Amino acid sequence: MTPLDAILISIGEELLIGQTINTNAAWIGQQLNHEGIAVKEVIVITDDQSDIIRTIRDAEKRSGLIIITGGLGPTRDDVTKIALCQMFGSSLIVDHAVLEDITEFFTRRGFPMTDLNRLQAMVPDNARVIRNPYGTAPGMWFEQDGKIVISMPGVPHEMKNMLTTYVIPELKQRIPTYHIIHKTVLTQGIGESFLAELISNWENNLPENIKLAYLPSPGFVKLRLSGRGSDKAFIEQAINDQVISLKTIIEQYIWGYDDQTLEGLTGTLLLSNHLSMATAESCTGGYIAHKITSIPGSSRYFKGSVVAYDNDIKSRILSVDQLLLDNYGAVSKEVVEAMAEGVRKLFKTDLSLAVSGIAGPGGGTDEKPVGMVWIACSSQDKTISKVFQFGGTRERNIILGSVAALAMFRSFAENHQQPG
Amino acid sequence: MTPLDAILISIGEELLIGQTINTNAAWIGQQLNHEGIAVKEVIVITDDQSDIIRTIRDAEKRSGLIIITGGLGPTRDDVTKIALCQMFGSSLIVDHAVLEDITEFFTRRGFPMTDLNRLQAMVPDNARVIRNPYGTAPGMWFEQDGKIVISMPGVPHEMKNMLTTYVIPELKQRIPTYHIIHKTVLTQGIGESFLAELISNWENNLPENIKLAYLPSPGFVKLRLSGRGSDKAFIEQAINDQVISLKTIIEQYIWGYDDQTLEGLTGTLLLSNHLSMATAESCTGGYIAHKITSIPGSSRYFKGSVVAYDNDIKSRILSVDQLLLDNYGAVSKEVVEAMAEGVRKLFKTDLSLAVSGIAGPGGGTDEKPVGMVWIACSSQDKTISKVFQFGGTRERNIILGSVAALAMFRSFAENHQQPG
Repeated sequence: MTPLDAILISIGEELLIGQTINTNAAWIGQQLNHEGIAVKEVIVITDDQSDIIRTIRDAEKRSGLIIITGGLGPTRDDVTKIALCQMFGSSLIVDHAVLEDITEFFTRRGFPMTDLNRLQAMVPDNARVIRNPYGTAPGMWFEQDGKIVISMPGVPHEMKNMLTTYVIPELKQRIPTYHIIHKTVLTQGIGESFLAELISNWENNLPENIKLAYLPSPGFVKLRLSGRGSDKAFIEQAINDQVISLKTIIEQYIWGYDDQTLEGLTGTLLLSNHLSMATAESCTGGYIAHKITSIPGSSRYFKGSVVAYDNDIKSRILSVDQLLLDNYGAVSKEVVEAMAEGVRKLFKTDLSLAVSGIAGPGGGTDEKPVGMVWIACSSQDKTISKVFQFGGTRERNIILGSVAALAMFRSFAENHQQPG
Repeated sequence: MTPLDAILISIGEELLIGQTINTNAAWIGQQLNHEGIAVKEVIVITDDQSDIIRTIRDAEKRSGLIIITGGLGPTRDDVTKIALCQMFGSSLIVDHAVLEDITEFFTRRGFPMTDLNRLQAMVPDNARVIRNPYGTAPGMWFEQDGKIVISMPGVPHEMKNMLTTYVIPELKQRIPTYHIIHKTVLTQGIGESFLAELISNWENNLPENIKLAYLPSPGFVKLRLSGRGSDKAFIEQAINDQVISLKTIIEQYIWGYDDQTLEGLTGTLLLSNHLSMATAESCTGGYIAHKITSIPGSSRYFKGSVVAYDNDIKSRILSVDQLLLDNYGAVSKEVVEAMAEGVRKLFKTDLSLAVSGIAGPGGGTDEKPVGMVWIACSSQDKTISKVFQFGGTRERNIILGSVAALAMFRSFAENHQQPG
């Protein structure tokens, strides 16, 4: 048996005109990979009946598993169900369980049900129905000539529930025991081509069954090692061996692995050392606090933040000396250190992080151009600071400033000695 | 001449395993639409030479314009250039202008240049080169048998620069004067199927050349009207007429159009009324401040925020009476109103917005379940508050809470009478 490769088809013009970003495809790719199913292709098309049919037929030539999202809404611009019925020669029949689901969906919310919603309980007579507790459109599972074609709504939380509770368990009963193992090494502080030079010998000697990919993202370069085969332990071992040998070459640049995030790792570190923190943000405008609080349980170590978008707030609330603001300006070593000390004392935390910079597009000068960001970390014992020069769009400067700040804070917290 | 439809091909396994979300395709779709070029399909494949060639050949059967991103990095996992050379029978030659670009790129950054980077100055002899001021991989423009095939790097800011400064100007000289007009009506406070019922008569009477799509997103339903043709003014007029008639039916649910955002509209409103604001955030953890400060120039009306992730901060810094916290709990009408008043006085602003809720996954009770969010708006004259019940994932609750808060604050600011 050969390993199963899936093709995903995302339906919806909003994806093609760029109004919506295709996060569904990325999420499904992750989940299937986890189960040893590779996604070999993602195809995005509009809600056009003949395009849908042609694309599915084409995809069936290259894959035995087609997963479709989108085009199942109650409104008439959605034609996926009609296309599938035409393709599989289905008649539509009322599914009473689905009708009950839909009725209950509306009862629970205290809303009346519309005729359009009632129509959603009509399902193809030759498909297995996938129930949808979070919405009104059921999913469909067709099988013909050894090919599986699955259709789910495009609304992310409805689709996610169907995939995890029904589609993946069903697929797992049918797929050969192939495994795909990925290990991603997260690096920071070195560019892609320098990294490539540094590890070229190691890369040259990678075994045939392990593939390497370089993935640059704002503030990081990720190195992904992948292997696939029927013996899970064997591939895992082979990849782990390579990671160990990679570590001897670039240890100082590695800050984490796989899905780890700086905010998650920082949280774990603070929790295990019983440390608390607060932030004072100027140019990053709350984005660092948002990243930190995106971690469940962050309230156990994160006390809060002052977003000081105004010099008056920096002096009155964060107790930054007005003289420092006058003499050095808000974007300076002196002010960012005073912000870090001020917020630490105000929030009575062990540690603090402060950022002051120019996100742009306006506000830059020759001396202090757009993208200049000062970052400070403070504890009772010491306050350190560092300046960075980014200089892209406003959005990019906010992200790069936040990543650099979290990275700097994490190593500051790692080196922090508990008093006593 | 028929209008030009493009097919986008995104290359990179990171997109298929879900490590990276395909934002490039969305962005390119927006830009091309703006120029009257529809994207009829997006195809995502891996860095595999034969897959790349097969996909391009297939796409050429359906479209005269193929735009490829990704797979041009200096490292050996990137094979797009090799695939294109094979497909178009090209030899690689040194492009001295590109070599200079790359040399300058490194000189400017004070880094030494590697051999891998020098190799990137090798380009196919039968392609036009697209210079890349922000990176080391040039783009390529092939033309054969009336088909255009364009290849650009996958790094977003490098690709964006090439598309806007070279690709679009070149395409504009060749495309027939077709126009695609989209108008998106942004609604809030009504579900998709209720909206569909409410406007079904209007929808039934839409002219043939105008298409309607329903786009639900967290907190909103967007209605997109699209038309395409050679007479721009005529389509625009037809769409505008329909929007006017739609407005008479659902005016109370419409809050904006097209790319407008709540944070952008709120900023414009505050600026023109010379009002300042501050926020106090608990469960949204800085996300509202981040959304507000993502708008360039927001420092003119946004003074800052206190992220109060701890009750002690709510009482000490935001001056919330400890008795209120003890008697009603942090997630209550009394506390959220006190937070709004506290932050308004602390930051000395005209208006303020406060949020307190339970983002989850932990921390919920029967009485106050996960997803319960209290929101308050305050001015010198009055403080109002409202409770919402969301109840999805932590991420969803943070987003829905922030959207509801911004919507509530915007209408509060609209109704605010300047004293005097």
